[in-house]
Amino acid sequence: MAGNTIGKMLRLTSFGESHGSMIGGVLDGFPSGLNIDIQKIQDALNRRSPGQSTFGSPRKEPDVIEVVSGIYDNMSTGAPIAFLIKNVNQKSSDYDHLKDVYRPSHAAFTYDKKYSNTDHRGGGRSSARETAVRVAAGAFCQQLLALYNISIMGYVSQIGTVSLNMSYNNLDLNSVDNYSLRCPDAETNRQMELYLDEIKAESDSSGGIVSCVISGLPAGVGEPVYDRFQSVLGAAMLSINAVKGFDYGMGFQSASMKGSEHNDAFERRDGMISPASNNAGGLLGGITTGEDIYFRVAFKPVSSIGKMQQTVDKEGNPAELVIGGRHDVCIVPRAVPVVEAMAALTAADLMIMAGMIHTNI
Amino acid sequence: MAGNTIGKMLRLTSFGESHGSMIGGVLDGFPSGLNIDIQKIQDALNRRSPGQSTFGSPRKEPDVIEVVSGIYDNMSTGAPIAFLIKNVNQKSSDYDHLKDVYRPSHAAFTYDKKYSNTDHRGGGRSSARETAVRVAAGAFCQQLLALYNISIMGYVSQIGTVSLNMSYNNLDLNSVDNYSLRCPDAETNRQMELYLDEIKAESDSSGGIVSCVISGLPAGVGEPVYDRFQSVLGAAMLSINAVKGFDYGMGFQSASMKGSEHNDAFERRDGMISPASNNAGGLLGGITTGEDIYFRVAFKPVSSIGKMQQTVDKEGNPAELVIGGRHDVCIVPRAVPVVEAMAALTAADLMIMAGMIHTNI
Amino acid sequence: MAGNTIGKMLRLTSFGESHGSMIGGVLDGFPSGLNIDIQKIQDALNRRSPGQSTFGSPRKEPDVIEVVSGIYDNMSTGAPIAFLIKNVNQKSSDYDHLKDVYRPSHAAFTYDKKYSNTDHRGGGRSSARETAVRVAAGAFCQQLLALYNISIMGYVSQIGTVSLNMSYNNLDLNSVDNYSLRCPDAETNRQMELYLDEIKAESDSSGGIVSCVISGLPAGVGEPVYDRFQSVLGAAMLSINAVKGFDYGMGFQSASMKGSEHNDAFERRDGMISPASNNAGGLLGGITTGEDIYFRVAFKPVSSIGKMQQTVDKEGNPAELVIGGRHDVCIVPRAVPVVEAMAALTAADLMIMAGMIHTNI
Amino acid sequence: MAGNTIGKMLRLTSFGESHGSMIGGVLDGFPSGLNIDIQKIQDALNRRSPGQSTFGSPRKEPDVIEVVSGIYDNMSTGAPIAFLIKNVNQKSSDYDHLKDVYRPSHAAFTYDKKYSNTDHRGGGRSSARETAVRVAAGAFCQQLLALYNISIMGYVSQIGTVSLNMSYNNLDLNSVDNYSLRCPDAETNRQMELYLDEIKAESDSSGGIVSCVISGLPAGVGEPVYDRFQSVLGAAMLSINAVKGFDYGMGFQSASMKGSEHNDAFERRDGMISPASNNAGGLLGGITTGEDIYFRVAFKPVSSIGKMQQTVDKEGNPAELVIGGRHDVCIVPRAVPVVEAMAALTAADLMIMAGMIHTNI
Repeated sequence: MAGNTIGKMLRLTSFGESHGSMIGGVLDGFPSGLNIDIQKIQDALNRRSPGQSTFGSPRKEPDVIEVVSGIYDNMSTGAPIAFLIKNVNQKSSDYDHLKDVYRPSHAAFTYDKKYSNTDHRGGGRSSARETAVRVAAGAFCQQLLALYNISIMGYVSQIGTVSLNMSYNNLDLNSVDNYSLRCPDAETNRQMELYLDEIKAESDSSGGIVSCVISGLPAGVGEPVYDRFQSVLGAAMLSINAVKGFDYGMGFQSASMKGSEHNDAFERRDGMISPASNNAGGLLGGITTGEDIYFRVAFKPVSSIGKMQQTVDKEGNPAELVIGGRHDVCIVPRAVPVVEAMAALTAADLMIMAGMIHTNI
Repeated sequence: MAGNTIGKMLRLTSFGESHGSMIGGVLDGFPSGLNIDIQKIQDALNRRSPGQSTFGSPRKEPDVIEVVSGIYDNMSTGAPIAFLIKNVNQKSSDYDHLKDVYRPSHAAFTYDKKYSNTDHRGGGRSSARETAVRVAAGAFCQQLLALYNISIMGYVSQIGTVSLNMSYNNLDLNSVDNYSLRCPDAETNRQMELYLDEIKAESDSSGGIVSCVISGLPAGVGEPVYDRFQSVLGAAMLSINAVKGFDYGMGFQSASMKGSEHNDAFERRDGMISPASNNAGGLLGGITTGEDIYFRVAFKPVSSIGKMQQTVDKEGNPAELVIGGRHDVCIVPRAVPVVEAMAALTAADLMIMAGMIHTNI
Repeated sequence: MAGNTIGKMLRLTSFGESHGSMIGGVLDGFPSGLNIDIQKIQDALNRRSPGQSTFGSPRKEPDVIEVVSGIYDNMSTGAPIAFLIKNVNQKSSDYDHLKDVYRPSHAAFTYDKKYSNTDHRGGGRSSARETAVRVAAGAFCQQLLALYNISIMGYVSQIGTVSLNMSYNNLDLNSVDNYSLRCPDAETNRQMELYLDEIKAESDSSGGIVSCVISGLPAGVGEPVYDRFQSVLGAAMLSINAVKGFDYGMGFQSASMKGSEHNDAFERRDGMISPASNNAGGLLGGITTGEDIYFRVAFKPVSSIGKMQQTVDKEGNPAELVIGGRHDVCIVPRAVPVVEAMAALTAADLMIMAGMIHTNI
Repeated sequence: MAGNTIGKMLRLTSFGESHGSMIGGVLDGFPSGLNIDIQKIQDALNRRSPGQSTFGSPRKEPDVIEVVSGIYDNMSTGAPIAFLIKNVNQKSSDYDHLKDVYRPSHAAFTYDKKYSNTDHRGGGRSSARETAVRVAAGAFCQQLLALYNISIMGYVSQIGTVSLNMSYNNLDLNSVDNYSLRCPDAETNRQMELYLDEIKAESDSSGGIVSCVISGLPAGVGEPVYDRFQSVLGAAMLSINAVKGFDYGMGFQSASMKGSEHNDAFERRDGMISPASNNAGGLLGGITTGEDIYFRVAFKPVSSIGKMQQTVDKEGNPAELVIGGRHDVCIVPRAVPVVEAMAALTAADLMIMAGMIHTNI
C-alpha cells in the first residue's frame, strides 16, 4: 500500500488515473523563495506529449498545467507545490473491446490480481499518462538545480537494433530536440527512423534505451550505505513504465573489464584532486565525485500493438486480439523528458539530504 | 544523512566499520512466532566469507553471529532482531601505507569529501565487509519466505569475458555451491577459472555478473507507482558495493526487441490465468504476476589491485601505488549470497506491504 | 522540509493555502473495493464549516468536495484518493491592513522567520482552513473503519471556564450535533453559551477541550516501542491548529493517583480476558487492549480577536491592532470533526500496520 | 510492525529485551567531526539508573555503555553510532511467579495479544529498561546541541498530590540533581519525600509530572503542517513508558483562557522582533519563535506494586497477586533524563530538517 510518494526530503506524491478527470501531483519540501517560470514547466510537459512525431501516438494530450498551491507572486513559498493536469481527450470507448480480454504483457492483469476494483479504461493508474506528473515535478526541480549549475540532459541512444556508438562527450546534448527521435547524431537518428518505419508497417512496437547525463553535481552527495546515489537514482528510473534495466558509468560493460582498465586514477586539476578519467560514472561508494553522472535506462517495446495476438479472455477462453486505439510505435523518444525529470527529483532530494540545498533560496 | 536503514515495513539498520570492534544489524518488523535456525544464518555468513577459493581474499573472517535481541526460546518475538559480528582478524597495519594516497576508484576519496572525519582503515564504513550484515539479515528473511514456499537462488553468470549462455531453466540452481566460482555449468565454471588464473597472474581483478531467481512469489506483490517491485529490488541491488547495473526479465536485451517478440500471451493453466511465457521476468506494472522473477546484477572489478598504479597523494602530488594486503581477484562468487540476501529482504518487505505475510506466524 | 504528509501505510498529503484557488489532499494506501458514499464526506465537511452557530465565524465556506482520483464506479480502486476543495469566499482585502503588522500569537511571525516568501493572506498555509482537508480524508477512513465496527465520537467537554464533569459513559455521544456547542449535556451546553456570550461581547475569544472516544478497536493495535498507539495519535492531535495538549485515559490526573487506584485488574468476561475497568484508556504498552480509547485535546483561544492589542509592525515600531475580518469566538465546537478525522486516520493507519485491515475489502 | 525507529533525518533504532544479554541502539544521521565525550554519555546513563534514592528500585543496573560504531579517534565519523549496554543484574527467577498471571495494567497482556511468542521475563521489550537506550542516544544529541548553545533541562514538578507551583523562570534548573527527587525547590522536594514515604509504607506507587525546558533553539524550526515541532516532540514523549499526557506552553490551562490573556504581543528587543511574553511555549504554527520551549509530561503510577491485587491467570481463573521483585515506588525522578533525551533527539532531528545542523561539524 501507499506507494505513490517518492523522495525523502523532497517528495512527490502522484495521483490520477488516465481516464479520470485529471492527474496531478504534490511536491513537498521544495525550498521557498525561488522564482518559478511556469512556462518552462509547460514546455517540459509539451516535450512529453504524444503527437510529436509520426512514431508516437497521434493522440492529442494538451497537458496544461495548473498550479494550485505553493507559489505566490511567481515565487515558491515553501508550502507544498500542487498541480493539476486535466484529462481532456480520452476516448474511453476505445477500451470497451479490451474490457474482457487480457492484453499480453499489460498490467491490467496484475492490477486485477492486486486490487478488487480497478478502472480498466486506458490502463487506469498503470497508464504511462502518469509520467506527465513526473515531468511537471521534475521541471520544478530542474529550475531549482539550475541555480546550482546542475544540468540534466537525456537522449535516445538505442531504438530496436539501431544503437548510437559514441560517447556523450562527442555529442551536442543541447541539440537533442532538433532530432526527430531525440538521438543527437543525424545518421543514427536517420537509421532509427528507417527501423521504426518497418516496425510501424508491421503494426509492431520497438524498445530502446535512453542515456542521460547529470552535470555539475558537487562531490559529497549520496547517503551510504543504502541510500547511495545510484540506489535512489536506479529506483527512480525503474519506477518508470516499461523500464527493464538501469546501469551507470561503465555499467554492464564493467563486468568484462579488468581493474586496471576500469580504475580511474586521481590527478590534481585546477588545484583540486579529481579522477582523471570517469569510468565510475561520477560515483564512488555511492557518493558523487564531482564528475558527470551518466547512466542508461532500458525500455521494453510497448505491449499494445496492432498486430493480431493470441491470448485469453477473463474467463480463460482463448481469444484473438487486435488492439486498435492510438498507440505509440516507440515511446523511447517521449521517455527522454521522463528520465530527466526522475533524475532531477533524485538529484534535488539528495542535494537536500546532503545539506547542499537550503530551505530558502 | 541517515542512509543506513533499508525497507519500509521490514527494516534493516546496519552499523559498524571494517576495522572497528564489530559490525551488526537490527532487523525490525520481523513477525513473531517463527522458529529460527541460527545455524542456517551462520551457514549463510560462511558462504560469504573470504578464503573459500583461490580467487578470493586469503583473509580469514570467521564471522560468527551473535543474536542479542528478538529471539526467545529459539523463536522470534516480534521485537527487533539484533545481531553482532565481531571483527577478529583485521590487520590495520596493512592500511598504513594507504593512509596518505588516494587509491584509484576507491571510495576513500568520496568519504573524505563528504565526512570531516573518517576511519580510513580497511575502507571503514565503505568496506564490503558491511555486506556480512546484509547476508545475516537476509538469511532470517529466507527462513521466513521458506514458510511461503518462496525461494531465492543466485549464481554467477559472467566473470570477465567468460559468460554463461544458458537460461536458468536449464541449470540446477541447487548445485551452485558445488562449483568453485558458483557458476552451475561445469564447462563455463572451468573457463572462468582459467580466465581468473590469468587475471591473478597479472595482479589484476575482474568484474562479473550475478544472476538470481525468486520463485514462488504470489501474484499481487509490489506497490505502484513508485514502489514497484523492480524499483525496490533494483535499489537494494544497487546499494551493494561495486554494483554498476541491474536489469530484470529481458532487461537491456528488451531494448532491441519488438513488442510481438517480447509480449507474453496469457493462457489458462491449471485452472488459472497466467502468462504462457515469461519475458516480463515476473512483473507487469511493478506487480508480481506469479511467475519467476529473474534479474541480473553487474559488478565492476574490485579497485584494489596489486598492479602498480599512478595516482596522487592527499596533497595532490603524483604517487605510484602498489596495493598489498589480502584482496580478492574477483568478488563475484562471494557476492552471490549478498544478492540473495538483498532479494530476500525486498521480497519479505513487499510481501508484508501487500498484506501477505502476517504479524504472527 | 516536507512535513505535509502524515501516516505510514495510509498516508495523507495535504496542500493548498487559505487564499489560493483551492486546498486538497491525497490519501494513499486506502484499500480497494470499498463502496464510498461521497455525501457522507460532504456531510463531514459541512460539520466543520463556519457559520453554524453564532459563536463561529460568519464566513460562508461551502467546502464542496470534488474527488478526482481513486474512486471508480463509486468504489475505491486502491489508487490514491485525491480530492479538491475550492476556495470560493475568501476576502483577501480583509488582510491588507494586517500585512505589515505582527498579530500577537499568530503564526505569520514564524512563517516569516522560516520561509523567505509567504502568502500572508488569511494565514496562507498556517490557516485552520487546512483542517478541511483532514476532515475529508478522515471521513473516508471513518467509512473504512465502520466496516470493522469501529466508531469515533468527539464532543466538547470544556469551553473557557465551563467544563463538563461527566464520564462519556453517561453521555449520548450520538446526539452531539443536537447541541449548539457540541457539548452533549443540555445544562453544560447552556452554561457554555452564556460564557461565550460574554466573551463575544468583549470581542475576545475562548479556548476549550475536545474529548473523543474510539470504540471497537480490537486488541493488538499499535507498534512499540516508538510507534505506540498514543504516540501516533498524540502527534496527529498536536498537528491540529491551536492544540496545546493531549492526554488519554486518566491523563494528567493519573499523576496524582496511586498504583492501587489506577491499575485495572483483569477479569474473565464473555469468555475472554479483559480489563475490568479502563483507567488505562484502552492502551497498555502502546498497544490496544480492546477497550475504548478515550482522550482529550486542549485548544488555546484563537489569537485573532477584535479587542485592541499592542504589538509591533514588521519594522519593529509599536503598533495598535484591531483585527476586523470574520473570526471565530471559539473554534472548539468546529474542531470536533477535525479531532475525529485525525483519530480516524490514526486508527486506520495503525490497523493496516497491524495487518488487521487488508489491501482489498 | 517495525516501530523501533524514531526520527527522520537523525534516527534512533532501539533493540534488546530486559532479560536478554544486552540492549542497545543505532543512531544514524549524526554529523561527522564532533568530539564525543563518552564519559558524559555514561554520566547520563548513571542519572537514569535505579538505586539512586530510597524511592527507586534497589536493583543495581550498572549500565555501562560500549560504543561499537561511528566514533574514530574520539570523534564522530558520520557512520551510524551504535552502542551496547549489557544486562548484568537481571534476576529472571523474580518473574517465575508472574508467568501465568496477568498483572493489572501491565503490558504483558497486550504483548500476548499482539505477538504469538514473547519474553515474559521482566517485561521483555515493554520494560522501561529500554529507556536506557534513549538516554544514551539523547546524550549524544545533547553534545551536538550544546555546540549550538541549545540546552535541555527537566525537573520533577509533581509527585502524587504534591506539586510545585512556580514558574521555571524562578528555579535553578542547573541544581536539579542536588535534590533527592529532582524537584529543584527544597520545600516541595521535602513534601514529595514525605508523600512517597507514605506510599512506600502502603506498598503502593505514585504518578507524577516531569517538566522540561528547551532553551536556545533558533526561530524557524519545525515542519508544518504535520511535522510541527510539538507533534514530533509530543510523539517522542508519548512513546516513553507510563506517559499518559503531554502539553506545552500554557497547555491544558490555555483551554480556560481568553485570547486577550493568552496572546503574546510582539516587541522589539535587542534589535529583533520577538514575543514579549511566552504563553505560547516557544511555538507558533508548529515553528519555533526563538523563545524557550517548555512542556509537561504526565506519568501514571507504575503498575507493579507490592500491595495485594485481584486479577486472573492466563486461563481466566481469579487470582490474588502480590508482586515481589525490586520495583520503583515512583519512577518520575528517574524519568527526568529520559524526557531530556527524547527532547534532545527531537530538537536535533528538527534542526537538521530545517537545515540548521550540518553534515559536518
